[in-house]
Amino acid sequence: MTDLPKKELFSLPEGVIYLDGNSLGPLPRKARARAAQVIDAEWGQELIKAWNTADWIGLPKQVGDRIGGLVGAPEGTIATGDTLSIKVYQALAAALKMRLDRKVILSDSGNFPSDLYMAEGLIETIDKGLELRTPAPEAVLEAITDEVAVVMLTQVDYRTGRMHDMQALTRAAHAAGAVMIWDLAHSAGAVPVDLMASEAEFAVGCTYKYLNGGPGAPAFIYVRPDLIETVEPALSGWMGHDAPFAMERHYRPAMTTERLRIGTPPIVQLSILEEAMNIWEGVDMAEIRAASIELSELFIREIEARCPDLTLASPRDPQQRGSQVSFAFDNSYPAMQALIAHDVIGDFRAPDIMRFGFTPLYLDADDIRVAAGRIERVFRDGLWRDPAYQTRSRVT
Amino acid sequence: MTDLPKKELFSLPEGVIYLDGNSLGPLPRKARARAAQVIDAEWGQELIKAWNTADWIGLPKQVGDRIGGLVGAPEGTIATGDTLSIKVYQALAAALKMRLDRKVILSDSGNFPSDLYMAEGLIETIDKGLELRTPAPEAVLEAITDEVAVVMLTQVDYRTGRMHDMQALTRAAHAAGAVMIWDLAHSAGAVPVDLMASEAEFAVGCTYKYLNGGPGAPAFIYVRPDLIETVEPALSGWMGHDAPFAMERHYRPAMTTERLRIGTPPIVQLSILEEAMNIWEGVDMAEIRAASIELSELFIREIEARCPDLTLASPRDPQQRGSQVSFAFDNSYPAMQALIAHDVIGDFRAPDIMRFGFTPLYLDADDIRVAAGRIERVFRDGLWRDPAYQTRSRVT
Repeated sequence: MTDLPKKELFSLPEGVIYLDGNSLGPLPRKARARAAQVIDAEWGQELIKAWNTADWIGLPKQVGDRIGGLVGAPEGTIATGDTLSIKVYQALAAALKMRLDRKVILSDSGNFPSDLYMAEGLIETIDKGLELRTPAPEAVLEAITDEVAVVMLTQVDYRTGRMHDMQALTRAAHAAGAVMIWDLAHSAGAVPVDLMASEAEFAVGCTYKYLNGGPGAPAFIYVRPDLIETVEPALSGWMGHDAPFAMERHYRPAMTTERLRIGTPPIVQLSILEEAMNIWEGVDMAEIRAASIELSELFIREIEARCPDLTLASPRDPQQRGSQVSFAFDNSYPAMQALIAHDVIGDFRAPDIMRFGFTPLYLDADDIRVAAGRIERVFRDGLWRDPAYQTRSRVT
Repeated sequence: MTDLPKKELFSLPEGVIYLDGNSLGPLPRKARARAAQVIDAEWGQELIKAWNTADWIGLPKQVGDRIGGLVGAPEGTIATGDTLSIKVYQALAAALKMRLDRKVILSDSGNFPSDLYMAEGLIETIDKGLELRTPAPEAVLEAITDEVAVVMLTQVDYRTGRMHDMQALTRAAHAAGAVMIWDLAHSAGAVPVDLMASEAEFAVGCTYKYLNGGPGAPAFIYVRPDLIETVEPALSGWMGHDAPFAMERHYRPAMTTERLRIGTPPIVQLSILEEAMNIWEGVDMAEIRAASIELSELFIREIEARCPDLTLASPRDPQQRGSQVSFAFDNSYPAMQALIAHDVIGDFRAPDIMRFGFTPLYLDADDIRVAAGRIERVFRDGLWRDPAYQTRSRVT
């Protein structure tokens, strides 16, 4: 039995109920000491030697293996670094090389825009008449035809929390001869994922949400073990070379997943991420999932009972949801500003969505009830109408 | 008159002479406090709000403008983020889009391998018969023909310190109708660079060498002002979108250099980099250059007088060198290990090069003389023959 919640391992501002760990996870208490260690003792004292003495060079793999433990990826199948958008591009370019006879990339209209933008950029770069199709999420299954080279989906919808059936869609993709890429941005650390069982060729994800790696923490990419030695990295940087320091004239990819590394890894952020991953030690994702469902069901009951103006924008069936609940409201932007001012932090997503994330590592049922009370007051008293909440910030 | 050296602004290990700032710059004293501020006060207390309240969203541009001040790039022409390899890919892909009628990418055999590897990966991705040519550095000028779409060169050779003539080569590239990309990895903060005067279309660089941004600090990319509104980013992520938070279905690039941003920026590392850039405030690159030449000339004189077994592998004319001096020696690997053990830190580059970087911000003539004395002893007494120095580390 996991010892949940692990709230005391996080530094959370006094009085705040943080329901936005699906956007930026909170600060692990040990992150600062680890950063200080890396900065003062490793960088400051060891200088260039730290690549060996502090094993900076091995850090990306170590962290990747830790992430793998949460998403059903065997040791050595996950490379870390860069940003999620870069890893999407890399997975997509590699997948397209596996199906050169086909011209269609299939995603859905609910996918996170950056994934679709990266696909558009790749299509422009290749410039051979590739086509990106984005049917509604509900219509994806039937859109998987034998024209499709790659199916690229985000498992949990960033707006609504709706969750795709990873097994069924991967099976359908393979039955149609397509390569499957899963974006786990809202899955890793949120819901149980079994990448090996899914048989998907690729997965990508970010680590600053449910994994609490900090703002701009590095991303990850998974490749199915049987493909490791043949996958083409597309973004073929020296850190993916079989012998980076031999300074060979031609690229020769590593015979491990490290071939999907590109440039010099961001050591400070990777170290903080590793510290954040320590919190997951011994945590059972099935237990996280059960607790998350309990919290989100409680939240929906409370909000629907207290706030009649809000409309549930997430699937009602918890099995169809990730670890977030969204409500639609015409004035969601000022409403979320008002909630934040009243110490319930969620976020707004255009056009009219308020998102709330459920993270059992540091949230319990009491938090949800307190949050619901505060939310009720903001809507009951129309506090969101305050002019202070109407002006849009640069980041919404 | 700049107040050089600024040694007291860096935290350097007692007794060590650090001649490897061309590989990883040392720790600015204020970096840890800045990291603690970002981690504890911004991430910890402000959480997701820090994107606005701490202006995380504006940080990449602010840092870019600071870098611009050192390389002759006007405000708003440099985007930061990712790694140098990624920025090389992005510049190259964008440049190729500007010369679709041509098939040749021209670089040189002395370019940093990762730049060439990224070009190879892009060529594979585009798969339309593009060709990468890598003549010897001395033969590049005559290899610029009207077949060449893009000339992509690193100004200062990572092995030898040999410096290309940026003006002459850019002029030749343009005369042949080619697009020019400069990699400033060993130039930014090392030698005076005037990007605007060069008229080059693109430049890229890293910030963990002479700019002292820390291990894995973010990279930068410059685009000539007249091209900003038309350049195709290729790696088209949401942070380069004109309205990232509008979550539009299609990519629509920002009408600023920010279009070359890709994913979520690494806030902790960017903040440390910004702190490192503060040290450059009021520093005149002409003065840095004069001091660097003084130091490197002194070093060459001392080493040639004291160590007859070493052969200068850098141009003897300081105007032909960047801010590093390399010596060739058959047993450079163990020799460099011995030097490091005797508190003179440089680095080894395959096959037989010992590199020493000159960084007047924190080095003076006394340091060079002390280093020369230690180096003399290692070679005079054959200390490098010690078996302890023969085993290769993972990072050489």
